[in-house]
Amino acid sequence: MLREALPFGSTLGPLLLTRLRLGTLQDTPDADAGGLGAEPAVPEEVAEKAPSSQLRQLAHRHCGVSALRCVLSCMPQQMVVWDEAFFQGRKKEFTAECYDVRECGFQTVRSFKIESGAWAGFEHVGFQGQQFVLERGEYPRWEAWGGRHAYHVERMSSFRPIACANHRDSKMTVFEWENFLGRKGELSDDYPSLPAMGWGSSAVSSFRAHSGAWVCSQFPGYRGFQYILECDRHAGEYKHFREWGSHVQTSQVQSIRRIQQ
Amino acid sequence: MLREALPFGSTLGPLLLTRLRLGTLQDTPDADAGGLGAEPAVPEEVAEKAPSSQLRQLAHRHCGVSALRCVLSCMPQQMVVWDEAFFQGRKKEFTAECYDVRECGFQTVRSFKIESGAWAGFEHVGFQGQQFVLERGEYPRWEAWGGRHAYHVERMSSFRPIACANHRDSKMTVFEWENFLGRKGELSDDYPSLPAMGWGSSAVSSFRAHSGAWVCSQFPGYRGFQYILECDRHAGEYKHFREWGSHVQTSQVQSIRRIQQ
Repeated sequence: MLREALPFGSTLGPLLLTRLRLGTLQDTPDADAGGLGAEPAVPEEVAEKAPSSQLRQLAHRHCGVSALRCVLSCMPQQMVVWDEAFFQGRKKEFTAECYDVRECGFQTVRSFKIESGAWAGFEHVGFQGQQFVLERGEYPRWEAWGGRHAYHVERMSSFRPIACANHRDSKMTVFEWENFLGRKGELSDDYPSLPAMGWGSSAVSSFRAHSGAWVCSQFPGYRGFQYILECDRHAGEYKHFREWGSHVQTSQVQSIRRIQQ
Repeated sequence: MLREALPFGSTLGPLLLTRLRLGTLQDTPDADAGGLGAEPAVPEEVAEKAPSSQLRQLAHRHCGVSALRCVLSCMPQQMVVWDEAFFQGRKKEFTAECYDVRECGFQTVRSFKIESGAWAGFEHVGFQGQQFVLERGEYPRWEAWGGRHAYHVERMSSFRPIACANHRDSKMTVFEWENFLGRKGELSDDYPSLPAMGWGSSAVSSFRAHSGAWVCSQFPGYRGFQYILECDRHAGEYKHFREWGSHVQTSQVQSIRRIQQ
């Protein structure tokens, strides 16, 4: 096993605890600190004392999901959108949900960057239609990204931040049948193929998200329709596929993973 | 943390060791053993003694990658394809690579099931063009699965098995610049967003796959073009993006994960 190493990073932000726990990206002595926008590393003892991380842990431990959501809503979550591809044209920064991009003067969103946090994008206004998990990174062309050929989505019309738990604390139960009945499986990791892990079906009929935010997908390898399941929405209970979202037509689910913040 | 629990499964096959190590899917006392094709659980001590698993471990430990590949090539890898959607029409089973589906009497492959192993699918004959990781599960419609709108691929023309390492043993180094230069990061996990893990760029310029098979993707969340990187091809060394595949146009890489077998 590789030793648990310190990732790149200098901001004592809310992401850091998750990054440290997850991270095996290694800053090396021969690294060029000025290259490709990488930042100098932060000593672990400093990072662990980041106030937002402590607050997050304490809130989760002592006050439960509601407090965690409150803390998360106070933490920086930033998304920058443009109305042309490759980060050109009209630009706007968001730190909270957008119910309808047209109300912000956008006919369409053609490119965007997730600067911090994890976000959910939606096909229609009011967080309806196809769902897309948007994790930190650059999305230069909607056409290259938005939906499969058979499910193509012309535009992203609304979006909102997602409240994630620390990866290690994420837990979900999947059930064979609706209403939390039948055979079940307890998840706390990422599963690019549920059948490969022993789930004897290409469907999951109900979910109980105990902590964290998850994305499940129709096909193995996180492909096809995506459904975002969050512990602090629906009280974490999704007892029938009609509750996963307005676009869901079947209970076909073959891959599931935690959403990264 | 959830306890490490026994996954479903009865076959003492090559997948079992990986599944046991990875798995937290839990067989529960109230589970219906007859439901949804799930099978009765196997005691861990029996599963650990599965000859193929032992052979695989020994081959990897003592003989290196070549022996491992030999062992893997002797292990069952099965893919079933149909020329119509939803598993209809002409059907054929494969346990080894297919250089050109037309030579097997298929004008096109419209649906398929991966019964065991992990496979790579390709846009063109001879393992050329866009690459698709195919993990265990069902793929009922190519149109719903094959490529993004802007990169749509009409058909899958060739495919071959992928030799994967055990997830825990998978290791890769990513480099900022071509020819294994510049800042580097050592990976042994799945990374839905490299930027969120502290990689200060939306690109990776060269890779060294020490063990296992990996898939890296253009966008966060395993989206966009996929590039399959294997420790036993190119000697695991991919020093420029032109070596990742015939369809690669940029070094944009924002998510990376191990391929599951």
